[in-house]
Amino acid sequence: MPQNPDAADLTARLIRCPSVTPDEGGALTLLADELVAAGFICQRVDQNGTPNLFARWGAKGAARSFGFNGHTDVVPPGDPSSWTHPPFSGHETDGWIWGRGATDMKSGVAAFVAAAIAFVRETPPKDGALILTITGDEEGAGKDGTLALLDWMRAEGEQMSVCLVGEPSNPDRMGEMIKIGRRGSITIHIEARGLQGHAAYPHRVRNPLHALTRLLHDLVTTPLDHGTAHFDPSGLQVTTIDCGNPASNVVPEKARATLNIRFNDLHSGASLETMIRDRADTISAETGVDFTMTSDIAGESFLTEPGPFVDLVAGVVREETGLDPVLSTSGGTSDARFVKDHCPVLEFGLVGHFMHQVDERVPADQVRQLARIYRRILERYFA
Amino acid sequence: MPQNPDAADLTARLIRCPSVTPDEGGALTLLADELVAAGFICQRVDQNGTPNLFARWGAKGAARSFGFNGHTDVVPPGDPSSWTHPPFSGHETDGWIWGRGATDMKSGVAAFVAAAIAFVRETPPKDGALILTITGDEEGAGKDGTLALLDWMRAEGEQMSVCLVGEPSNPDRMGEMIKIGRRGSITIHIEARGLQGHAAYPHRVRNPLHALTRLLHDLVTTPLDHGTAHFDPSGLQVTTIDCGNPASNVVPEKARATLNIRFNDLHSGASLETMIRDRADTISAETGVDFTMTSDIAGESFLTEPGPFVDLVAGVVREETGLDPVLSTSGGTSDARFVKDHCPVLEFGLVGHFMHQVDERVPADQVRQLARIYRRILERYFA
Repeated sequence: MPQNPDAADLTARLIRCPSVTPDEGGALTLLADELVAAGFICQRVDQNGTPNLFARWGAKGAARSFGFNGHTDVVPPGDPSSWTHPPFSGHETDGWIWGRGATDMKSGVAAFVAAAIAFVRETPPKDGALILTITGDEEGAGKDGTLALLDWMRAEGEQMSVCLVGEPSNPDRMGEMIKIGRRGSITIHIEARGLQGHAAYPHRVRNPLHALTRLLHDLVTTPLDHGTAHFDPSGLQVTTIDCGNPASNVVPEKARATLNIRFNDLHSGASLETMIRDRADTISAETGVDFTMTSDIAGESFLTEPGPFVDLVAGVVREETGLDPVLSTSGGTSDARFVKDHCPVLEFGLVGHFMHQVDERVPADQVRQLARIYRRILERYFA
Repeated sequence: MPQNPDAADLTARLIRCPSVTPDEGGALTLLADELVAAGFICQRVDQNGTPNLFARWGAKGAARSFGFNGHTDVVPPGDPSSWTHPPFSGHETDGWIWGRGATDMKSGVAAFVAAAIAFVRETPPKDGALILTITGDEEGAGKDGTLALLDWMRAEGEQMSVCLVGEPSNPDRMGEMIKIGRRGSITIHIEARGLQGHAAYPHRVRNPLHALTRLLHDLVTTPLDHGTAHFDPSGLQVTTIDCGNPASNVVPEKARATLNIRFNDLHSGASLETMIRDRADTISAETGVDFTMTSDIAGESFLTEPGPFVDLVAGVVREETGLDPVLSTSGGTSDARFVKDHCPVLEFGLVGHFMHQVDERVPADQVRQLARIYRRILERYFA
């Protein structure tokens, strides 16, 4: 019988695969080899050059089907000479594993793959299934990654009852935070168009900068909400204003601004568009300055309500780490935003230090601890 | 005895001098010839290539010394083929004189030169002096024009008791407006510097656009004043805001804005700088965003208080035109902003149609009427 992979060792081996988005770099092949050896059905679900791996142990369509999701692609290492150890060396020293992806998130993938293999070999459940979805495009545009895997699964009749995304979730200490949802994100581009003219004759102009400043100041100073049971208050940031008028005695015709909103479950991308459109219309009616808008909804907010799945994961984390994890919806986006359309999803992984930085590294013991947590979650889920 | 020049004919002759700033084009030479023939002392006071003409009739240092100020330079005509008659032709037809400078302001200069010559020849005052300052750079940077003439006069001990600038002053009908002062103008460049960061983590950033928007909105919505006895309310226009941040998930470090204020006699350039600096400091203290500012004061506001000089000019205008002229301080800047440091100054001239436009033209009768008004002002002043 083949030996179960050690999560820390598997992390180092994955780091040695140079899988900068969208290169596969041998990472998914390595994982598929381990998984097939443990009895998983593996299938590559590549789309438009993006490598994706689907793996299932147990029967298709099982009533209880536990999913893990993660990615093996990494952001570029920058100048390799800036690194203490080469970024794709997987160098191990003094209990640390070094290299690009050590934290984000080859370690998380290694931990759930190692946990899943040990679980199905040593204490296989009588029924149910494990499904692993691992993409090679989480750091890039993302549309050919987890989203494509989930679309494929839906078409194939594959489904997960619940899913745990293995992204780093802890700000500083292992076990302090589980992510149970995420805020949504929308970017809105606004153009204000007034009437150009001489700065000395204000009655002959309609200054688009005055109307735009009024709209933005209004949006910035009016709280969107005060937070909800599981979400921080929604936040709005103006990220640029541009006009490009070089003449200080001329009122310009047009000006543009971009704003980004991270919003909680009181809003949707569409409701925010409508709110801003309404405010702009009010200002247009009073000033004669027209506003046109385009928007890009990167993701809607979502929440996996506290309940049995959350209790199960939080309980195991508490037992393994001694910490009572905060149930958080903070942070940026992750592939959980896609998984949430498929089944309840949580995120729990390592401490998120060194992500995207030079000298990214992870304590080997923390990876093994994470694998133990994942293994115990599986045991508890299928008990 | 040489013939007195006709104001309309002199206008046409001046138009034929192609005196686009800073070219003299023969215009000042032509005027000097006429003036010398009438007994004026003429002296060119050129500075840095800018042609200027000083002319005096009567004794230097006379107790009563009436000044006229104007310019013979013109803005470029653009494409000559767009003109009905060539822009430097001085074409006369159907009572109109055509060409660049027909309104702004070869006609005004021709009117006061013709009036002054006829006055000193036909009804010379027993004492007193007439001083004409005519520059070839009013449409350009201006620092080597009227300002240089006035500096030279001060150094030479030449002085005017009062001065009339012959710029077009009437919006639509001859006689409806005398300008008794002008608003000041200041341009302020503001840079806001905060702390860059990810748009998803507002507690880790200090958004310079939010602080800048707050400052500008505050300035735009708080009236500077409600006008004074002779001035409209001061006005503030934001003329550009620029940031240039292409990343909608990043809060930028810096943003810039420019604003222009046209202000009345309740303010000075320095008082406005201080007011804006104070407001910026308040916002800095609350937001941690720093503001740096630079400013450029194009001119302070000034006013020639209604009194004997204003009454004299207004009375003559009323007699000649039948209209009761409004005493106004509206409009942009003119060389009156320099003259006001020398002596009381008013502006009265033609109807300001066609200025700086293609097919600039003026009714010959209006120029002659203006010359009559100037002549009668001189008679009344020296009576």
